Amino acid sequence: MKATILTIGDEILIGQIVNTNAAWMGERLTEEGVRPARMVVVPDEEYAIAEALRAGMRDTRLLLVTGGLGPTHDDITREVVAKVFDAPLRSDPSILDIVRQRFERRGWEMPASNHSQAMVPEGFEAIPNPAGTAPLLLGSYDHSDGAGLIACMPGVPYEMQHFMDAEVMPRVREMEGAPDILQKTLLTVGIGESHLTDQLEGVTELLSEGLELAFLPNLRTLRLRMTSTRSGDADHQSMDRLEAFIRERAGKWIYGEGDDTLEAAIGRMLEERGLTVATAESCTGGYVAHRLTNIAGSSAWVVGGIVSYANSVKEEQLGVRADTLRNFGAVSRETACEMAEGVRLRLGASIGLSTTGILGPGGGSEEKPVGTFWMGVSSESGTRALRLRLGNDRLRNKERGSTAVLDLLRRELLRLDD
Amino acid sequence: MKATILTIGDEILIGQIVNTNAAWMGERLTEEGVRPARMVVVPDEEYAIAEALRAGMRDTRLLLVTGGLGPTHDDITREVVAKVFDAPLRSDPSILDIVRQRFERRGWEMPASNHSQAMVPEGFEAIPNPAGTAPLLLGSYDHSDGAGLIACMPGVPYEMQHFMDAEVMPRVREMEGAPDILQKTLLTVGIGESHLTDQLEGVTELLSEGLELAFLPNLRTLRLRMTSTRSGDADHQSMDRLEAFIRERAGKWIYGEGDDTLEAAIGRMLEERGLTVATAESCTGGYVAHRLTNIAGSSAWVVGGIVSYANSVKEEQLGVRADTLRNFGAVSRETACEMAEGVRLRLGASIGLSTTGILGPGGGSEEKPVGTFWMGVSSESGTRALRLRLGNDRLRNKERGSTAVLDLLRRELLRLDD
Repeated sequence: MKATILTIGDEILIGQIVNTNAAWMGERLTEEGVRPARMVVVPDEEYAIAEALRAGMRDTRLLLVTGGLGPTHDDITREVVAKVFDAPLRSDPSILDIVRQRFERRGWEMPASNHSQAMVPEGFEAIPNPAGTAPLLLGSYDHSDGAGLIACMPGVPYEMQHFMDAEVMPRVREMEGAPDILQKTLLTVGIGESHLTDQLEGVTELLSEGLELAFLPNLRTLRLRMTSTRSGDADHQSMDRLEAFIRERAGKWIYGEGDDTLEAAIGRMLEERGLTVATAESCTGGYVAHRLTNIAGSSAWVVGGIVSYANSVKEEQLGVRADTLRNFGAVSRETACEMAEGVRLRLGASIGLSTTGILGPGGGSEEKPVGTFWMGVSSESGTRALRLRLGNDRLRNKERGSTAVLDLLRRELLRLDD
Repeated sequence: MKATILTIGDEILIGQIVNTNAAWMGERLTEEGVRPARMVVVPDEEYAIAEALRAGMRDTRLLLVTGGLGPTHDDITREVVAKVFDAPLRSDPSILDIVRQRFERRGWEMPASNHSQAMVPEGFEAIPNPAGTAPLLLGSYDHSDGAGLIACMPGVPYEMQHFMDAEVMPRVREMEGAPDILQKTLLTVGIGESHLTDQLEGVTELLSEGLELAFLPNLRTLRLRMTSTRSGDADHQSMDRLEAFIRERAGKWIYGEGDDTLEAAIGRMLEERGLTVATAESCTGGYVAHRLTNIAGSSAWVVGGIVSYANSVKEEQLGVRADTLRNFGAVSRETACEMAEGVRLRLGASIGLSTTGILGPGGGSEEKPVGTFWMGVSSESGTRALRLRLGNDRLRNKERGSTAVLDLLRRELLRLDD
């Protein structure tokens, strides 16, 4: 079964508000096996709303509408719904009472404009809003695949979420032909989309119309989303086979599933092993420490870090030798190793990480162009450093470099297990 | 002039990603006087994409498309655009060269799948992507109000933003009938929306239908956007009067204009005065240093920093006295002061900054609940600390706390001038 998510309101169109409601509904529908087929945002204008309502009813059996149910003159959703359904608006006395009581409980008189919020298109069910004044309006329509359901909800996120969970989704589950869906996402780091495509050569033979695989790339990370639109035992098994295939070919790049993050995965690995980490950052300037300390409870496994932008800090706080800086430069394997070892020993952590590089836009030379990046890792079992060639964009380089050194830590932790 | 914002990709529909791209484009268009008339999200499916392209070209003169330009089999935007425009795809040798060079610079061979990214519909202009492999595709179409412009951009936010600012908006400004608009934004920090409203009492008398003032709040910062929809000399003058009024009433909270950032403004102040800064971060975990080092050229005025998550690091690396930690705790005025002074002296900076607090979700007590935050600043002229009460959300607290301590540095620099 497919759904349309229709958001009504100028504030979304002009970018004053990000449409998190649509994302929330899309996720909830997907979890329940309903496929969001389209998201549409239209202004508070009759023609645009009516056209979007008609398209949603034509194309999908579920039409979720938010916004435009307030008491002001630019809230016209209920009027337009009434016109499109050719259903006159009538005042619902029980809804009106509930709205009036909300005001009375605060010692206020209900403003006249709120009368409009008790108006319900004929044939629609109105369900009171426990947290606000706009009720949920539920109606049905004819669709080529069976009866369709339209739900008009307020745009306030928690009011919408309440109505979705308490009223809309239970009705959706009871609709004839409500299908099932099965979904799982694997998260990789340290391999690009094209190379992973090559690693997974032959994977298309495991796919079918009911079993899809999508690649969702970000800087140095990828999400591999497997979706089965049927969920019989056979389909479970075919998704299991797909996952096994991917893990066999690309297991060493997979750090988690679903909503996991690389830093949270690392945190769990450190905590399980009773290990701690300290960071020595030159070019990433504190960003690696920031990412690790974003994780709640990270004080159990982050000791701290040194941001050694100036060479004097590298020498005095990390113990990098003046000779090393003079002979090899601050951006070198030798400096990266001494930084990682230095921060581990001085801060008393199990593992030390380091970054040093030229992230741009300035500072490059022929020998060490912008994008040159060294990262080091040090533990009792030894210290090593690796070089990467990043790009020209400073902030992207910080993102990519920090992900790379976190991945180096992840791989070090896996290596320590061997 | 009206625009359609079309986003292509299952990951948005299923709520895995919030559509921040659409909000960003909606805001940017609005700033430039173009009206976003509709936002649509469709899946990676030919029929849905084609239908949305046709509707956008029918209803609006500007059609901004993101997503579906990657190298994998589910990226079909370019094929569907070619079909809708009846324009055969041809390989663009200069784009192919640029994509191939991106791989070669990293010592990799270009995977075969990336060939598709150099395919350009006939009659379209392809502009290389400085940060990725998918080029911008620009085409024109007939619309009842004049020539229409379609721009197909990658879905990666900074790649899209680059193309919007560098290529798309300059072309939009030159389109026949593009609106004349004059806009200026003042940036404030450290004052809330309602307090600022009080400060600016009487400002409405300077406004008119052609001259608007919008308050766009973010965590501890505000953008004051002045928009004149006419741009004769008289309108320039009335906007100048408005700006002068705001600066007179709220000047001490204004740190910049337009796209400026607080950290860049601070960097300029430090550089002009020949001063340097060092950070001692407990709860912000490196985020303050990260923000400062995001600024190109910051190595001229950032010496470095210490992330002192563990008390041992506060004592050994920053010289916080064991007595202080025992008697007042790590989250205290005394510790904040010793951290700020310690990092200034040990790293040899002109100014030391410090943060220590309980950012949550755990770790609070009755005396020091989650949200308790101390920040310190130290210079030759003295050391002081201030307390803030933040909220319960860890990441928002990091954002707000780091902005607060950067503002403390800004005010210290202004004070040193006196």
